[in-house]
Amino acid sequence: MSSEAPEPFTEQDYADRMQRAALDASAAGLAGLLIAPGPDMVWLCGYQPTAITERLTLLVLAPDAQPRLLVPALERPDAEGAPGAPVLRLTDWRDGQDPYAAAAGLLRPNARYGVSDAAWALHLLGLQEALPMTSYRALTTALPMLRAVKDEHELARLAAAGSAADATYEEIRSVRFAGRRETDVAADLARLLLEHGHEQVDFTVVGSGPNGANPHHEAGDRVIQDGDMVVLDFGGLKDGYGSDTTRTVHVGEPTREERRVHDIVREAQQAAFEAVRPGVACQVIDRVARAVIEKAGYGDHFIHRTGHGIGVTTHEPPYMVEGEEQELVPGMCFSIEPGIYLPGRFGVRIEDIVTCTQDAGRRLNDTDREMALVT
Amino acid sequence: MSSEAPEPFTEQDYADRMQRAALDASAAGLAGLLIAPGPDMVWLCGYQPTAITERLTLLVLAPDAQPRLLVPALERPDAEGAPGAPVLRLTDWRDGQDPYAAAAGLLRPNARYGVSDAAWALHLLGLQEALPMTSYRALTTALPMLRAVKDEHELARLAAAGSAADATYEEIRSVRFAGRRETDVAADLARLLLEHGHEQVDFTVVGSGPNGANPHHEAGDRVIQDGDMVVLDFGGLKDGYGSDTTRTVHVGEPTREERRVHDIVREAQQAAFEAVRPGVACQVIDRVARAVIEKAGYGDHFIHRTGHGIGVTTHEPPYMVEGEEQELVPGMCFSIEPGIYLPGRFGVRIEDIVTCTQDAGRRLNDTDREMALVT
Repeated sequence: MSSEAPEPFTEQDYADRMQRAALDASAAGLAGLLIAPGPDMVWLCGYQPTAITERLTLLVLAPDAQPRLLVPALERPDAEGAPGAPVLRLTDWRDGQDPYAAAAGLLRPNARYGVSDAAWALHLLGLQEALPMTSYRALTTALPMLRAVKDEHELARLAAAGSAADATYEEIRSVRFAGRRETDVAADLARLLLEHGHEQVDFTVVGSGPNGANPHHEAGDRVIQDGDMVVLDFGGLKDGYGSDTTRTVHVGEPTREERRVHDIVREAQQAAFEAVRPGVACQVIDRVARAVIEKAGYGDHFIHRTGHGIGVTTHEPPYMVEGEEQELVPGMCFSIEPGIYLPGRFGVRIEDIVTCTQDAGRRLNDTDREMALVT
Repeated sequence: MSSEAPEPFTEQDYADRMQRAALDASAAGLAGLLIAPGPDMVWLCGYQPTAITERLTLLVLAPDAQPRLLVPALERPDAEGAPGAPVLRLTDWRDGQDPYAAAAGLLRPNARYGVSDAAWALHLLGLQEALPMTSYRALTTALPMLRAVKDEHELARLAAAGSAADATYEEIRSVRFAGRRETDVAADLARLLLEHGHEQVDFTVVGSGPNGANPHHEAGDRVIQDGDMVVLDFGGLKDGYGSDTTRTVHVGEPTREERRVHDIVREAQQAAFEAVRPGVACQVIDRVARAVIEKAGYGDHFIHRTGHGIGVTTHEPPYMVEGEEQELVPGMCFSIEPGIYLPGRFGVRIEDIVTCTQDAGRRLNDTDREMALVT
C-alpha cells in the first residue's frame, strides 16, 4: 500500500538550508547557531547520531563561514556518511579531551548564539563555562520559524504522511472496539500506520470513555465498552515528515449530549480552519476555535492550545496559542485540534493538519469529521 | 522464556531516593536539584511523561522540603498516576502561562541548583532568565554518582537483564550469518532480546568486516561474508534496567592475525575485570585495559574509553576513562569493553557488565569470551 519513496534531499538542499539559517540568525542579531543532535540537525544537514548522549556533537552555523560539525571521534565515520556531510567541515574530539574547549575554538568569545531547544543543559553549561562572555538564546525564542515554512518537497511529504494517516483512520473504523482493550486498538493503529508507509510511530492515543477526558492519555488496559466515546489520536513519521490526526468515534448509539459536544468541537475546528490565511496571527486561530466552545458553555473544558506546527517532528512551532503573534505565512503547516474534556465522563477532539496557502487553509487530513459509529 | 516481573518499587523506595538525593545535593553545596523528564526522574519518582517536549516538567528536590513536581496542566492526570506521586506535591501550569515564572516560585532566588544533564537548553535558559541570580550545575558534574550505587533490588534487575542478553547471545550463535544482511542479524538480536523479557531494545550493533572497525556502526545493508569478523553489541531495558554486552564472532575460520587481535582484546578485558575492587579509581580500569592493548602495539586502534555505568539507562556515570578519579564503590555497575579497530578491515570488542562487590568484580554477563565461530 505504501507509495514510492520521494527523491532524497540533495547536498544543495542542505547547503541552502544552512545558509538561510545562518542569514536568519544574523538578521536576528546572532553571531550564529549552535545545533544539537535532533530534528534541527537532521533538517539542516541530514545527520542523526545513533544515540543522543552525553558526548557533545554540535553543528556551528555562522554567516560567511563554512558550516562546522564537531563530533566525538568514534562517531566520525557515521557523520561522514550523512547526506549533508560534503558541505560541512568536520572536527572531532576524543574521549578524555575537553569537548567544550574544542567547541569554544569554533566560536567567537564575546558573542550571542542561538542554541537548539533540546540541546542538553550539560552541554550548554559546559559552553557557558568555556566562554563566559558569550551568551545564548533558545532557537524557538530567537528563530522560532526556522523550520516553519515548508518548501514544495516538504509539503509533498507532509501531504503523503497525512494521506497515510487518513488511510489508517478509514481502516480502523472497521475493527472491533467493544470488548477489546485500548492497547489492542492502539496496536492496530500502529500496524496500520506502518503498513501505510510510516517508518516511525510516535503516538497512538486510544482514550475510551473517561480516559478520553485526559488529553494526554495514551492507551491503557481499559476494556472498551458499548456506549463509549473513543478519542483516536495517532501519528508518526513517513519519509522523515510527520502525521498527526484525531477523530473521536462512538461505540454504538451516542447520547444527545455526546452528539452535542461532538458537534461543538467540529464546529470549532471548522471555524478555525476557515480563519487560516496569510497574515492572520497564530493566536487568532486559537481564539476562533475557543470562541465557539466558550459560546457553547464548555470553555473551561478546552484545556489546551488549539494547535502546533509539524514537519520533521510532530510537535514544533508555530503554536496556535494565545500570545503567539506570529502571522501565518504560506507554507506553514500545523494542527487544528480543539477538544472538550469532561472529567470522569468522556472527551472529544478533532484534529487535522492544515497548511496555509496563498489565500486560505488546505487540509492535509480530510477524512469525514462527523462522529463515526463503530462496533 | 521470560522470568517473573520483579516487585514494583514502592512509594517508600521513591521517598528514600528523593530524600537521599536532596541530602547529597546539600552536601555538595547545592540548594537542591532540578530534575527534568528522563532517567533521573524515573528513578527518583517513577514518573515518565508520554513525551519529552517543549512544555516544562520539573521535579524540585530540596533538603527539609517535600519534593515538588511542576507539570503542564494537561499532563497532571498522568503525573498523579506515577508510583511516586503520593509523596510529591504537584503544581501545574496552563498553556499561555509562563512556566518559568511558575518554576521560579518553587526555587530560591539566589542559590545554586543541580540540573539534569539532559534538561533542555530552552528550559535552562528560561530559568536563568527568570532567576538571574541563581546558578546551575549539571548533575553529572555536581552529583555524578547520584544513581551509580545500586541497591540489591536494582542489582537483581541488572543481573536479570544481563542473563537475558546472555541467552540472546547463546541463541544468535546458531543463526545463519554468511549471505544475510547485517540488518537481518540485528533483527534477530532484537527479537531475541524481546523474547527474553526486554521491554525495550536500545541498540543492536552488527558490524561485519570493515564495518566492525567503526565502533558506533549499528547495522547496515552489507551482506555478511564468509571470513568476516562480526562485532555484536546489543542491549536494552528489562523491567526498567539495562543490558549491554558485546561479543565478536567469526564466520568460518579466522586468520592468525584475527585470532591474535581477538586474544589481545580478551586479555585486556580480563585484566580490567580483575582490577575491579572498592577504592580503585575508574581511570585505573581504563588504564589497565589500555596497557594490554598498547603493549601489544595496537594502542592507536583503541579509540574509546573502556566503559560506562548502567542502570535505568544503558549509558551513565561512572565512566571508565582517563581523568575519572572517582573510586569504585560496592554496588556500582558498569561495562568493561575494550576494542581494537583496524580501519577498512575489521574490529574486535568484548564487553561485559560488571558490578563491584565488597572485594572484587562480579560479571553480570558471562558467556564464553573465546571467539565463537559461526556459519
